[in-house]
Amino acid sequence: MEPDACAGWIALQQPGREAEKVGRSVLMVLALALALAAAPALADGVPGPLKQSGLTLMPWPAHVRLREGRLALAKQFDIAVTGHPGQRVYDAASRLLQHLQRRTGIAFRQHAVAAGSEGEQAVLVIKVRRPGVLRIGEDESYRLKVDSRHAVLTAEDGLGVLHGLQTFAQLLQADSSGYYFPTVDIRDQPRFQWRGLMIDVARHFEPVDVIERNLRGMAAVKMNVLHLHLSDNQGFRIQSNVFPELTELGSRGQYYTQAEIKQIIRYADDRGILVVPEFDLPSHAVSWLVSHPELASAPGPYHLYTRFGGKNPAFDPGNPETYRFLGRFFKEMAALFPAPYIHIGGDENSGRQWDNNPTIQAYMQPAITSDTALQAQFIQKLAGMIDADGKRIIGWDEILQPGLEKGAIIQSWRGKDSLYQAAREGHRAILSNGYYLDLLYPASHAYLNDPIPPGTHLERAARRNILGGEAEVGGDLVRPATIDSRIWPNAAAVAERLWSPQDVRDVAWMDQRLRAVNLELEELGLTQIRNQGMLLRQLAGQYEVEPLRVLVDVISPVRGYQRMASGDYTIYSPLASIADAATANPWAAIRFNEWVNRFVQHPDADTEERIRTQLEQWLANGPALEALLERSPALHPARPLAQSLVTLSKVGLQALDCIDQKQPAPRAWARQTTTDFLQAREPAAATKLRMVDAVERLVVAALKGGRPAGADATSGEERGGG
Amino acid sequence: MEPDACAGWIALQQPGREAEKVGRSVLMVLALALALAAAPALADGVPGPLKQSGLTLMPWPAHVRLREGRLALAKQFDIAVTGHPGQRVYDAASRLLQHLQRRTGIAFRQHAVAAGSEGEQAVLVIKVRRPGVLRIGEDESYRLKVDSRHAVLTAEDGLGVLHGLQTFAQLLQADSSGYYFPTVDIRDQPRFQWRGLMIDVARHFEPVDVIERNLRGMAAVKMNVLHLHLSDNQGFRIQSNVFPELTELGSRGQYYTQAEIKQIIRYADDRGILVVPEFDLPSHAVSWLVSHPELASAPGPYHLYTRFGGKNPAFDPGNPETYRFLGRFFKEMAALFPAPYIHIGGDENSGRQWDNNPTIQAYMQPAITSDTALQAQFIQKLAGMIDADGKRIIGWDEILQPGLEKGAIIQSWRGKDSLYQAAREGHRAILSNGYYLDLLYPASHAYLNDPIPPGTHLERAARRNILGGEAEVGGDLVRPATIDSRIWPNAAAVAERLWSPQDVRDVAWMDQRLRAVNLELEELGLTQIRNQGMLLRQLAGQYEVEPLRVLVDVISPVRGYQRMASGDYTIYSPLASIADAATANPWAAIRFNEWVNRFVQHPDADTEERIRTQLEQWLANGPALEALLERSPALHPARPLAQSLVTLSKVGLQALDCIDQKQPAPRAWARQTTTDFLQAREPAAATKLRMVDAVERLVVAALKGGRPAGADATSGEERGGG
Repeated sequence: MEPDACAGWIALQQPGREAEKVGRSVLMVLALALALAAAPALADGVPGPLKQSGLTLMPWPAHVRLREGRLALAKQFDIAVTGHPGQRVYDAASRLLQHLQRRTGIAFRQHAVAAGSEGEQAVLVIKVRRPGVLRIGEDESYRLKVDSRHAVLTAEDGLGVLHGLQTFAQLLQADSSGYYFPTVDIRDQPRFQWRGLMIDVARHFEPVDVIERNLRGMAAVKMNVLHLHLSDNQGFRIQSNVFPELTELGSRGQYYTQAEIKQIIRYADDRGILVVPEFDLPSHAVSWLVSHPELASAPGPYHLYTRFGGKNPAFDPGNPETYRFLGRFFKEMAALFPAPYIHIGGDENSGRQWDNNPTIQAYMQPAITSDTALQAQFIQKLAGMIDADGKRIIGWDEILQPGLEKGAIIQSWRGKDSLYQAAREGHRAILSNGYYLDLLYPASHAYLNDPIPPGTHLERAARRNILGGEAEVGGDLVRPATIDSRIWPNAAAVAERLWSPQDVRDVAWMDQRLRAVNLELEELGLTQIRNQGMLLRQLAGQYEVEPLRVLVDVISPVRGYQRMASGDYTIYSPLASIADAATANPWAAIRFNEWVNRFVQHPDADTEERIRTQLEQWLANGPALEALLERSPALHPARPLAQSLVTLSKVGLQALDCIDQKQPAPRAWARQTTTDFLQAREPAAATKLRMVDAVERLVVAALKGGRPAGADATSGEERGGG
Repeated sequence: MEPDACAGWIALQQPGREAEKVGRSVLMVLALALALAAAPALADGVPGPLKQSGLTLMPWPAHVRLREGRLALAKQFDIAVTGHPGQRVYDAASRLLQHLQRRTGIAFRQHAVAAGSEGEQAVLVIKVRRPGVLRIGEDESYRLKVDSRHAVLTAEDGLGVLHGLQTFAQLLQADSSGYYFPTVDIRDQPRFQWRGLMIDVARHFEPVDVIERNLRGMAAVKMNVLHLHLSDNQGFRIQSNVFPELTELGSRGQYYTQAEIKQIIRYADDRGILVVPEFDLPSHAVSWLVSHPELASAPGPYHLYTRFGGKNPAFDPGNPETYRFLGRFFKEMAALFPAPYIHIGGDENSGRQWDNNPTIQAYMQPAITSDTALQAQFIQKLAGMIDADGKRIIGWDEILQPGLEKGAIIQSWRGKDSLYQAAREGHRAILSNGYYLDLLYPASHAYLNDPIPPGTHLERAARRNILGGEAEVGGDLVRPATIDSRIWPNAAAVAERLWSPQDVRDVAWMDQRLRAVNLELEELGLTQIRNQGMLLRQLAGQYEVEPLRVLVDVISPVRGYQRMASGDYTIYSPLASIADAATANPWAAIRFNEWVNRFVQHPDADTEERIRTQLEQWLANGPALEALLERSPALHPARPLAQSLVTLSKVGLQALDCIDQKQPAPRAWARQTTTDFLQAREPAAATKLRMVDAVERLVVAALKGGRPAGADATSGEERGGG
């Protein structure tokens, strides 16, 4: 080794750095990061050859056998149906024709599949015994066999066929000889019955076309419940014919008419998806109380919130008029929504309004001894009314209180303890905790969040009560142009967690398939990829945004509630910043992290070359990026990120240079980089760089002279930390 | 000169070329191309300094004075309104706040503009005397003065305010110091009263959200009429409560409910846009006759067409039931649409069904002597009924027949002769000919199509009858994901032609502003830019599409009716090919063409360097592009384009090398390139390369040893030829 050369590099790049002023060393920071980030090493159930097969199915089916050979796709492709399919199957098969046409440009002779499309000679033959009923617990299994001349999809009922058709669509591959389906034999069924997506349309409203395109995406990954959060402090989003004032005064004109919600329900039903409405009670209630202050627990008037969070006014549970009103309202909604469930919320009631209202306090005497008990009584009364309408209630885990009727379903947003408690007490239960996609953790975060992880001590009966889970998208920081990028592709990772066998959990392989399915979702009209380009062009004020895209590919928004916690946001906020363009999965950083993890454990020339090329690209991108950010005032807050990306690219290249010399790098040099790393870890423009830990691992490797770091040195911020 | 060096280049690149087998020489082809393509040199009315000012207003206002200075945009920005604005102005002002927020990321303190937002202290003060009435001929003028502290927008009525607010939004600029508006004094009013866009929703249906985003785009460029082509042989697109069977049997389930059309009308009205419905009669009538074969001129049954073109069945004009039916139908539609016009089509009736129907022939005896006269009678009866409903008819120029009531408006799709004839005969008239955007000529083509070009001999009274024009988008080869790219940005060029003074017609300057306005339209939700990226990713089956984008930037779809004429298309066609991703304006080719035109007239080193760099980029892109096309079967038909782009880039570079040597290039070499040019002019994948003429001009320049070619050597296929 030539330590001078290595040091010379450093001196050239970072003149005047005063190492002695730097307090915390890079080594201390790194030790902490590694201790926090070590990923559990769990068994994985998919054979390696299948992972290398290029199949990008998602959710991964229960059983896949892949054989040599292919079924070519040509304009002769057609579909026949035998048995008793029902309209849903015909429509889905017709959509498949359209989808395959658009993915390949091949114009098929067959344009639609309808009753009478029978026969065993078609390229794809569907065999189904009955239409099936759209309900939780229906048979959703299917078998799909593809050989070199035909494909046969067999299912007990139409819901299984729908899933099988999605799998068939995902099997499509291409090479220079044409489009084809690999020959496979797939037997598949879901692990969990309830695979939902909650969209909060109350805080920001989402028009019908946004919902419809997301329903298409849900169907593509075999999700079967759309949960609409229809009321909150910022808006009441569904027209009531009984109480039209709810939207007249409580929606700012943004709501679904009854015709529109029927259209959504029909659109979902066509795709095998139940629509479950949520009306949040007794709290989160401002939008009701704007038009009905007489039902509130404190005097009005009430005004729709323009901000998020804050106090949660509540209905008056001691006022008989409250129940008369809600009884009439729920009777109307029970008739409107065919699903057998109505979600009544029940979350985050502080009870403060109740404590401060003497009439309510008097009402509670003597039997009701706490706000919790009062809420429990309120929920029980609601459950009784809704029961009389022929529906069961669903509520957030706060409703799990003594006396709750067993038919009530618990949705756990706060953690798995209440999930298991509910299940043990005989309630059916759904997991949301860990699946809040708007908190913008990378896909692996939700993906590894198993509702019942291996080793969970839970009785068989209680296990059966756990129906599944729901991905959740809060509406605080989304608008129609950005919401898809908060749902997708990560909802597909949740869908796989809820559908696929427990032991399918190889994160790197999932990420590969997630990227592929994300591209497929684009054809369905989802906008998460294309609208990122739009936002970057708007921010840059020009067509050419490649230098900016390089930056956006290594950052993600600050995670969890950090951005919302700033308090800067209202329903009028533009949501057009670089944080809105950045996504939960900074792919370039994720890929870089994987290379570095591999390299520091088992150094090889090929991986080093990839790392070096990436670092050189980031470095070379610096001047163009800097000029672009400079010209665009909206991007000025992102300048520190661009600077750190350049600085750390230099540090990483120095580390590689030192490693190449196969002797430990000077500790003085590593100390000099400490402020660079501290600076690079600072959020800017509500985003953070996500390749920092990986560069730091290169520095540590350089300090060790490139010796393998061992299996503990993996993971980091790109995988869900901080 | 070293001819050997030049020839050596050629020999190296094109071994084995047999020049003697080439029939037509490049010189002959070129001479023809130049003779055909010479653009008229017309006076232009905008001073040079304004063109260099960086203002990207479109349509360009009638009078613009630009001064030194700027009005900075900050979060204190607010809007006040004095006078009698009406709700339309408040809503438009509130939308401006939202738009500016999203373009800049600045969160303003003011969230909405409503009654009571008065005062002279706001940053933008709107002064308006009356709300105005949404009708053709209303005062649309405004004055906008911006100084360094305030902007004042003054208008007689609300429609003028709407236009002024759009101009204000377009004035927004940015540099490293922030966002700002330049200080200007603008007085503006339209040249023509009728500035329309026709969208054909009959051949392919377009959902409400597609219409709404296009209405936003129309408002941005001051268009004021949305003409919906609601019925044709492929579908009937609006629900009738009187005759629900029209959509039940004639729409394949794709139509606007009455609630939806009311929503569209209200959305348009908010933005100062009239909605004019067209029900095409007596021909183009299959979708009516599917449910009412008893009204047809030949026995049914009728089935919706799945193809385009073909025979045009017609209503039976001799059947009194026809008029009873249409009378009831138009009474319903007259009440539904507030605009004072109903378009009744009237085009392309062959009369063949009438000729073959003895009953109709008998009905015609003895007074009606021709099919033309029969149609004229039919139209007159319709006009009478619609008149009784309080509306005037509009029809395509075929309805211009003796006896037509003077109130009828003629829309000329076949040429300007009928436009002027109608105007001379006392009809008001609208021009469509030359504005069919779906024929995919570059923007300059429609832009230079003046309804009343300089030198037109037309009496003053007749001139007044020419209301304006309409951009038209046929529905044959569009779907929701692609239609915006057929409308925009070229509709903005039509909007400028119809709004701006006649002498605003510098094409290169228009192209610059068109590119800028196109980017602004993206923020409004229009998808022409982002969906091109989506289509390319779908075609390539991968995220990385830059090599493909380089190709798409130099091709455009075959123009006119060539693609439709292939007969390959049905309503089920995927419309997902490279021809659907390519657009009317291949910007890279257009820019290249401009450089070459400049260079061959006045050779300079800077321009030559640009040309050389571009040619080298196309050449360098070749291998990556070839590999990408190879992998994707849907792109195989585009391979000849990629090959020609590489070949012609080499030829262009050879030409530049020869020009650099300042002596004529060898004629033998030029002859050798002839097959390259012939090959490069062949359409492939329903598209054509659009940089071929420009490279050929370089070859000609090389043959002249680089001497200036003179002013005639401009224009070419990039400017609207073939």
